[in-house]
Amino acid sequence: MDTNNPATEPLAFSAEERAAVYRAIDERRDMRHFSGGVVAQEVMQRLLQAAHHAPSVGLMQPWRFIRMQSRERRIGLHRMVEQERILTARAMGEREDEFMRLKVQGVLDAAEVLVVALPPGREQHIFGRRTLPEMDLASAACAIQNLWLAARCEGLGMGWVSLFDPAALADFLALPTGAKPIAVLCLGPVDAFYAAPMLQEQKWAARASLADMVYEDSWGQPSVS
Amino acid sequence: MDTNNPATEPLAFSAEERAAVYRAIDERRDMRHFSGGVVAQEVMQRLLQAAHHAPSVGLMQPWRFIRMQSRERRIGLHRMVEQERILTARAMGEREDEFMRLKVQGVLDAAEVLVVALPPGREQHIFGRRTLPEMDLASAACAIQNLWLAARCEGLGMGWVSLFDPAALADFLALPTGAKPIAVLCLGPVDAFYAAPMLQEQKWAARASLADMVYEDSWGQPSVS
Repeated sequence: MDTNNPATEPLAFSAEERAAVYRAIDERRDMRHFSGGVVAQEVMQRLLQAAHHAPSVGLMQPWRFIRMQSRERRIGLHRMVEQERILTARAMGEREDEFMRLKVQGVLDAAEVLVVALPPGREQHIFGRRTLPEMDLASAACAIQNLWLAARCEGLGMGWVSLFDPAALADFLALPTGAKPIAVLCLGPVDAFYAAPMLQEQKWAARASLADMVYEDSWGQPSVS
Repeated sequence: MDTNNPATEPLAFSAEERAAVYRAIDERRDMRHFSGGVVAQEVMQRLLQAAHHAPSVGLMQPWRFIRMQSRERRIGLHRMVEQERILTARAMGEREDEFMRLKVQGVLDAAEVLVVALPPGREQHIFGRRTLPEMDLASAACAIQNLWLAARCEGLGMGWVSLFDPAALADFLALPTGAKPIAVLCLGPVDAFYAAPMLQEQKWAARASLADMVYEDSWGQPSVS
C-alpha cells in the first residue's frame, strides 16, 4: 500500500484509511439473510447522506428513497416480489428448481426496507444524457453503492432486490407518472456476512478472473499489465 | 460515530475505519482537471480489483474495461467527445453558452483513460432482469463507483464522461455486436480536488436537501426522521 506515485501522495489517504476503504469494498455482500432488530435513526441518516453524496450526471441527483415503515405495506411488497420470483423461475428453463431453492429477498425480515425510485421530469436533464438517457439509472446505482458500503462499515447488511414488476410497484406506491422504482433495498442487522458472494457459495455462478475483464485499446486485446 | 445499535457492533468497523469510508464518500469528486503524470501499475490493479468486487445482478459481472494506451486512439476518442459536447450544447437551448464554458472532459490530460462497456450475451442472464433488464447497467455503475472511491483514497481523480454516441464509440473500439460502451473514465493525478462538485461551484446546479429525497411508505410523504 506504499507504492503510490509520489506526486499523488499529498492527496492520498493514509495507509490505514486506504485499508478501511478497500475492506468495505471487499467485505460488502448482497445479503438476503437478516436478523430483525432495528437501525438507529442516526445511523440511517448517515447511510442516506452517504447515498446522497453520490456523483450524478449533470448533478441531477435522480434518487428518491421511500422507507417502508408499515407492516401491512411490507407484506404487500413481499407478495409482489414472490410473484416475480415465480415468473423468473419459470423463465429460467432448466435452472428453475435450482433458482427456487435460493433465498432472494429479506423484505419481511430486514429491519428496514427502502424502495429507490427515479423521479419524474428526468427528460429535462440533457447534460450527459442526450445519447445515453439511462445515465440517470447509473447515477442512482452509484448512490445505492455508497449506501451499501456505508452499511457494511456500520455492521449492517443490505440486499438489492430487483425481482418486481416496476409498473405494479409504481402503482402500489402511488408514484407520479414518469417516476420508476429501480430497487427494493433490504437493510439491517445480520448474524454474519457471507464469506463470499452468496450466489458463489451456492454455486449459482463463479467470480470471473479480473484479467479477463481488462483489454488494451480495443475489445479482446488482453492487457499487458 | 459511536451510536450504533449494540447488536451490530461486532460486525461494525472501528470508528477510524468508518471515518475513512465516509471520508472517501464525502471527498470523491467528478474530476475534469488533471495534471498528467502516471498511475503506478500496482495502483491500477488495486483500482480495477475494487471495481471487480462490485455487486452484480445474478453475479453476472457485466463490466469490461478497455485501457486507452495509444495516444492516437486517445485523440480520436477526444474528438468524439467534442462532437457530442457541441450537439449537447445545441440541445440545451438557453443554457447553450453556459454549458460550452464548462470543462467536461480530461481525455487528453488524464494519465489513464478507461472505456467501460457492457459485454455481449447479456440476454442470457434472467436473474433479477426479467422485468428490469437495465440492472446490468446498474451493476456496472456500482463497479465504477467502487473504482471512484478507491481512486479518491489513492489520491487520484476520476471523471465519468458520458458525452459520446455509444454506437460510434462501439465502432471505434471494434466492440462485438451486443456490447455497449457506457463510460469514458478519465483517471489520474490532479493538482487538487474540488471542494464541492464542480457543477455546484460553477453554479450549474445545486445540491438538493436530503430531506426532500426521503419519503415514508408512499411517494411524497415526508419522512418523520
